[in-house]
Amino acid sequence: MKNNDTICALATAQGGALSVVRISGSDAVGIAASVFTPRGGKPLDERRSHTVVFGDICDVHGHPLDEVLLTIMRAPHSYTGEDTVEISCHASSYITRELLINLIEHGARQAEPGEFTMRAFLAGKMDLSRAEAVADLIASGSRATHRLALNQLKGGFSRQLSQLRDRLLHLTTLMELELDFSEEDVTFADRTHLIDLCTEIETAISRLVDSFGVGNAVKNGIPVVIVGETNTGKSTLLNALLNEERAIVSDICGTTRDTIEGTMNIGGTIFRFIDTAGVRTTSDVVEQIGIQRALEQLGKSNIALWVIDPTMENTTMESVATKLLSQCRGKRLAVLVNKCDVTDSLRLSRTMEWAAKMVEKHGNGVEWSSADMWAISAKLGTNIDMLHDFLQTAAAMPELSDDAVVVTNIRHYEALRAALDDIRRVQQAMHNGLPGDLVSEDLRLCINHLSEIVGTVSSDLVLQNIFKNFCIGK
Amino acid sequence: MKNNDTICALATAQGGALSVVRISGSDAVGIAASVFTPRGGKPLDERRSHTVVFGDICDVHGHPLDEVLLTIMRAPHSYTGEDTVEISCHASSYITRELLINLIEHGARQAEPGEFTMRAFLAGKMDLSRAEAVADLIASGSRATHRLALNQLKGGFSRQLSQLRDRLLHLTTLMELELDFSEEDVTFADRTHLIDLCTEIETAISRLVDSFGVGNAVKNGIPVVIVGETNTGKSTLLNALLNEERAIVSDICGTTRDTIEGTMNIGGTIFRFIDTAGVRTTSDVVEQIGIQRALEQLGKSNIALWVIDPTMENTTMESVATKLLSQCRGKRLAVLVNKCDVTDSLRLSRTMEWAAKMVEKHGNGVEWSSADMWAISAKLGTNIDMLHDFLQTAAAMPELSDDAVVVTNIRHYEALRAALDDIRRVQQAMHNGLPGDLVSEDLRLCINHLSEIVGTVSSDLVLQNIFKNFCIGK
Repeated sequence: MKNNDTICALATAQGGALSVVRISGSDAVGIAASVFTPRGGKPLDERRSHTVVFGDICDVHGHPLDEVLLTIMRAPHSYTGEDTVEISCHASSYITRELLINLIEHGARQAEPGEFTMRAFLAGKMDLSRAEAVADLIASGSRATHRLALNQLKGGFSRQLSQLRDRLLHLTTLMELELDFSEEDVTFADRTHLIDLCTEIETAISRLVDSFGVGNAVKNGIPVVIVGETNTGKSTLLNALLNEERAIVSDICGTTRDTIEGTMNIGGTIFRFIDTAGVRTTSDVVEQIGIQRALEQLGKSNIALWVIDPTMENTTMESVATKLLSQCRGKRLAVLVNKCDVTDSLRLSRTMEWAAKMVEKHGNGVEWSSADMWAISAKLGTNIDMLHDFLQTAAAMPELSDDAVVVTNIRHYEALRAALDDIRRVQQAMHNGLPGDLVSEDLRLCINHLSEIVGTVSSDLVLQNIFKNFCIGK
Repeated sequence: MKNNDTICALATAQGGALSVVRISGSDAVGIAASVFTPRGGKPLDERRSHTVVFGDICDVHGHPLDEVLLTIMRAPHSYTGEDTVEISCHASSYITRELLINLIEHGARQAEPGEFTMRAFLAGKMDLSRAEAVADLIASGSRATHRLALNQLKGGFSRQLSQLRDRLLHLTTLMELELDFSEEDVTFADRTHLIDLCTEIETAISRLVDSFGVGNAVKNGIPVVIVGETNTGKSTLLNALLNEERAIVSDICGTTRDTIEGTMNIGGTIFRFIDTAGVRTTSDVVEQIGIQRALEQLGKSNIALWVIDPTMENTTMESVATKLLSQCRGKRLAVLVNKCDVTDSLRLSRTMEWAAKMVEKHGNGVEWSSADMWAISAKLGTNIDMLHDFLQTAAAMPELSDDAVVVTNIRHYEALRAALDDIRRVQQAMHNGLPGDLVSEDLRLCINHLSEIVGTVSSDLVLQNIFKNFCIGK
């Protein structure tokens, strides 16, 4: 991507009543002026920043296209930090297409995905983690994801990282002072003090790493494992849940969802339902690791649903139950006796009795009480509301404060993991009394890993990877 | 719809990089101020019209929602003529939903479809035909539809109607003068002069009525009839056309398309392909009449494609050919010998020879020359480009000037038809020497029918019918 030219793009989705075309770059006002005629008043280049002008736009042949409102925002007081023009026109695909063609004809270039935000980053309007929060903010579909993204956009995460780096730099300085005077066999920095500092930093990074468990659950959903034999009605259950809750969360870039059967928002919390029968693998190793670690981090907040078909023969099922319950270890369990609409109550109660016995006998490490079992009909939707209540209680997400700093981005998580390894090597080295020069190398690595997150250290490739997932016009 | 309250709605489509929420009404600025805090500077109610402010919006609990740009446009210098505020935020469904909830909490009301434009109409910012053009402009998918809609929005049609009404009023005045003095047996207005005036008006209305043929073709597509036996590859041909041209025109409100197999934009002209085999009926009588009349009006601009399968036995086909060709009367015909990829050239040339004979013998009134026949392969797309060329030449739409007044709206068309009937009754009455009081009743009806179009005479019901087809936020 070149950064000295002027870019343009449709910033709104196709459809609706109005569309906004965004232009940014040193020639934004000039290019806009060649396609736009104000209805009276001063020419465009004499207009002040943050003013709106009514007028007409034309196509490449000079034919009138539309009556529009045009907004000027001059550098550096714009999103990108460059001169920016936004044209608000009627939402016709013909109009926006012809307008973009005419802007390109006059020297603008169609923007790449995320290029407006990338320019904001390059102009120093926001650091990398804040720029990434813009994409998260747009994708946010629940109160919790929105809050995390907005807090990240406002720089809460960046501030914590910057504090960490300051402390690491302080530590490094002390280390290097010691190094400079090592010939004289004088230990400037008190080793105990250094070790204490190290522990503090390790704790802080470790807390951020741990927060990814919550962050990933908030952003990508709390994993709920569905166990049960085939044909017990697992798919029907999933459909019942999905039909009841129309607010299906759409796919968000980042963590691959190959293993997920469905994602849904229940009462503001996103759940990811995983069919244990056919857990497939994702080809992306990094994402695999990410999912694995996220699951590990979540630990007890995992939930399992055991779907039983009471019309099946119970006698054949004990061995299966043993196997299924082993997948529920450490998880909060609900036992759902399905098909209650076609089963007599005697059979239902016998099945429940049997299931309770199974959990007692084989459910070692499973969190369950007899209240967590009831009859449902996935087909008719009977008692699905009880399942909603169970899921929300079982999820028991920590209430996030407005300024909670929680890591939600797998790139940040990986960098923090690396930084944590670095600082632990530093701790180990200091414990073993290794000389300062060996220690400071790891300290430098740790600082670099943290810097990657906000983008003070980053390659073009990393940048392009980050912004390619943005939509065009952002 | 009440008109003294403040309304709000999402004006852009879901998705994209940014969303715009629009607020209009006497309390628009006040309500906006209670959800928005500017980043420094004057409070919102002291800001000037047509300025943009950067700041933060919050949800009903006062939690921060987003960083936004807010635009103020004060009455009467806004689209609706009322105080208007537009909030441009990140395109998250969560953010826009919470923002709208908060605006409603502070006294705004969710706007009905088209309510912003309806308010513009009620405030006298535009007449009804111009308001309707806004919806057409948004739906416009081709250069021609866009041009017609924009011209209507700019008031070209309204001006012609207003001239017509002035002339009718002049005629009425002359008539009524005659009426007032009828006791005295004095004929003030020269009957010959009145008849001439009438003829002029009749011609003008008639021209507008006729323009609907072109207008409807431009807006809804030029009808192309596809004839041919089953299994000759008509559907494959349609698919070949559709695949080649990805610019399929989406459904536009108005004329029902039940009978249409496919609509597509070829070189800027919209074509509607009609399968004559299974022409179904639409339940809406008005639309039925509209389609029928549009087809009638189009007359010679109709086009027919005869698809022949050369692998079939020719001997059995003469009776069928007679029947098919009778459907092509008055139309420009292309004969397409399909499946050329699996037919040897001898058979192909024999089929063409036979088809040419058939057209000569049974194609009475069909516009055809031997150049309008060629071999194609719908399956492989062979020679489909020749079909494109044929269609564009055969369509031969009159080149519309920038200020062409063409009726595209079926409501306008029906009103003009009624006005034409009225004025013709006036002509008849004058011809028969009927007294002025009988004539002026029809003149009044004629004026009323024209006034319906621009909305000077209209019931609430008519208004609601017109605006319900708008999208919300417009």
